[in-house]
Amino acid sequence: MLDDGRYPLTEADLLPLSIGAALLGTGGGGNPYVGMLRSRELLRKGATVDVLPLDALPDDAWVGEVGGIGAPVVGVEKIEQGEECYRAMRAVEDVAGVKMSALICAEIGGANSMEPVITAAQAGLPVLDGDGMGRAFPEVQMTTFFIYGAKAAPAAIADDKGNTVVFRDVVDMYWLERFARDTSVAMGAAAGLAIAPMRADFVRRTAVPGTMTQALGIGRTILDARKRRLSVVDRIIATTGATLFFTGKVTDIRRELTGGFSRGEAQIAGMGDWQGCDGRIAIQNENLVLWVDGVPVIMVPDLIINLDLETGEPITTEVLRYGQRLAVIGLPVHDLMKTPEAMAVVGPQAFGYPDLDFTPLAFGPIGN
Amino acid sequence: MLDDGRYPLTEADLLPLSIGAALLGTGGGGNPYVGMLRSRELLRKGATVDVLPLDALPDDAWVGEVGGIGAPVVGVEKIEQGEECYRAMRAVEDVAGVKMSALICAEIGGANSMEPVITAAQAGLPVLDGDGMGRAFPEVQMTTFFIYGAKAAPAAIADDKGNTVVFRDVVDMYWLERFARDTSVAMGAAAGLAIAPMRADFVRRTAVPGTMTQALGIGRTILDARKRRLSVVDRIIATTGATLFFTGKVTDIRRELTGGFSRGEAQIAGMGDWQGCDGRIAIQNENLVLWVDGVPVIMVPDLIINLDLETGEPITTEVLRYGQRLAVIGLPVHDLMKTPEAMAVVGPQAFGYPDLDFTPLAFGPIGN
Repeated sequence: MLDDGRYPLTEADLLPLSIGAALLGTGGGGNPYVGMLRSRELLRKGATVDVLPLDALPDDAWVGEVGGIGAPVVGVEKIEQGEECYRAMRAVEDVAGVKMSALICAEIGGANSMEPVITAAQAGLPVLDGDGMGRAFPEVQMTTFFIYGAKAAPAAIADDKGNTVVFRDVVDMYWLERFARDTSVAMGAAAGLAIAPMRADFVRRTAVPGTMTQALGIGRTILDARKRRLSVVDRIIATTGATLFFTGKVTDIRRELTGGFSRGEAQIAGMGDWQGCDGRIAIQNENLVLWVDGVPVIMVPDLIINLDLETGEPITTEVLRYGQRLAVIGLPVHDLMKTPEAMAVVGPQAFGYPDLDFTPLAFGPIGN
Repeated sequence: MLDDGRYPLTEADLLPLSIGAALLGTGGGGNPYVGMLRSRELLRKGATVDVLPLDALPDDAWVGEVGGIGAPVVGVEKIEQGEECYRAMRAVEDVAGVKMSALICAEIGGANSMEPVITAAQAGLPVLDGDGMGRAFPEVQMTTFFIYGAKAAPAAIADDKGNTVVFRDVVDMYWLERFARDTSVAMGAAAGLAIAPMRADFVRRTAVPGTMTQALGIGRTILDARKRRLSVVDRIIATTGATLFFTGKVTDIRRELTGGFSRGEAQIAGMGDWQGCDGRIAIQNENLVLWVDGVPVIMVPDLIINLDLETGEPITTEVLRYGQRLAVIGLPVHDLMKTPEAMAVVGPQAFGYPDLDFTPLAFGPIGN
């Protein structure tokens, strides 16, 4: 470990990182398992990836944000070629005329926790300890970076076939989302996206800090509890500041793929302390709102996490199925995601719930 | 006129050019009227545009192909900002690292006859006397340029809001069509597309030659016939080598906008020599097939042109309506569009008619 606080990601770190990231995906973000295997392969071949604190870079260094874009339900079946994000990042470097000094996750939640690790291993770069969401969100503009003024262009998207499309001049982050989404659908609903280079001082101010380390810690907690045959759900609640909001059995799941998103709703019949209660979770890639008996109890941007009641395994929305027994826990999102600027982009109303005013979860230190 | 055969496009040329281009649009390609007005405005402000024979440029000069992309039915209502193609062309120049020496039409038919004229006036470039179709077609790859090996990248698309997207690496021309189409839909179904620079010697071999001059001539014939109160339909047939294949009244028109295309079908009840016969025309932006009593009599890539029976006005598919009286004429397409390579891209089977083998119209010298 160098004295700037960096630490190397070891092969042994990858599994807990992917498990913690799956939990922070709040049901979405895609399954990080394949990305974990790919990262491991790269490390075994001799690549090294350091995790760098946000303050380790000089102000004027350039940081690249990369991630997969598409529908998680497609990502399960359609394996990436492996260099999508790398080629997108190189295209952005070419068009912008800069070289990246480090990479950062768009979202720590789900598969996109691993993408910058893969790209960093391929490019010989470090990754920063932080991300743009502190969780997963379905759309490109839903990062602290864009919320606080990151440039929408030049960005680039690449697919598994060798196609690279550059978003050279883009009016705003919503247009970037639109172009990137439609292009990712044309590419088969799975592609790698790199956004415009960001200065390190900007990233230091706007990233959700420490989330690589946080995901690693959560993953280690889960693996440790399994090894010691403790209740994973209990251990997560004890160590992360999460609260249990519902337990029950999935009685119905509706899911459709429209415009590159998995949208749907899950019905859950209460069990245990919630016997006789009706749970309902709205989904757009991630879990958006949990209602219990019609009352919204957790809502986006706070984190709604479904764990398998027995194993504590985080359940992503694409594998939710009839009969699953769930523990639904809530975690407060980082303060950077609770400002009026953030509410306009990731509040309940931005997700199509005009009648829901964001009522933040009042507890828990996670990420704050 | 310089001794390389060039001639300047005058303000007086623009109306006949647009009228001839509308006829060569074979029902599609969008209405050239707005582009004609915009070209006129630019010429009145002092811009000059020369029409250059295909052999006027040195072999290694670069030629740019520009055109509007979107659904004609949208183009009628959504007026271009005016520099879409220009910005797309400049983006291609930047990415490719070359400067264009001249521009050429993707398609002489319809609105895209005027787009290179507008861009040429804005950029101070000449236009070449030729195009990539000798008519209009609905998709990007349906040009002689792509059929005979033009590169699919880098190409660029720009909209009226300031967005520019670069297709930097593209596997083939079908992927370019897919990306450009989807992006144009995201842009509101009206945008300007510039394809990769082509060498002048390649364009000389592959362009349909003389079609700017041909469109001008057709337009002048129509205007002259109107002025002299002659039958426009008769004069067109007398001067272009076209044949009359049907006259009748539109009894039904079905049209829908899907994936950026106007698709549909028109039913026509025969009149005059075709009294008692049933005509039917399939449409995908352009007229694709004319059946008379169930027998295909003209089929893509030959030109199927609907003229107003009384005025001789070319009728585009987006203004086709119940009760219109039509003269349906056929014109043979250029030989470059009849090779096996061309059939694979623009033959009846490429348009979804597996049972139609292309039977070319046997007459007429147009464009050949």
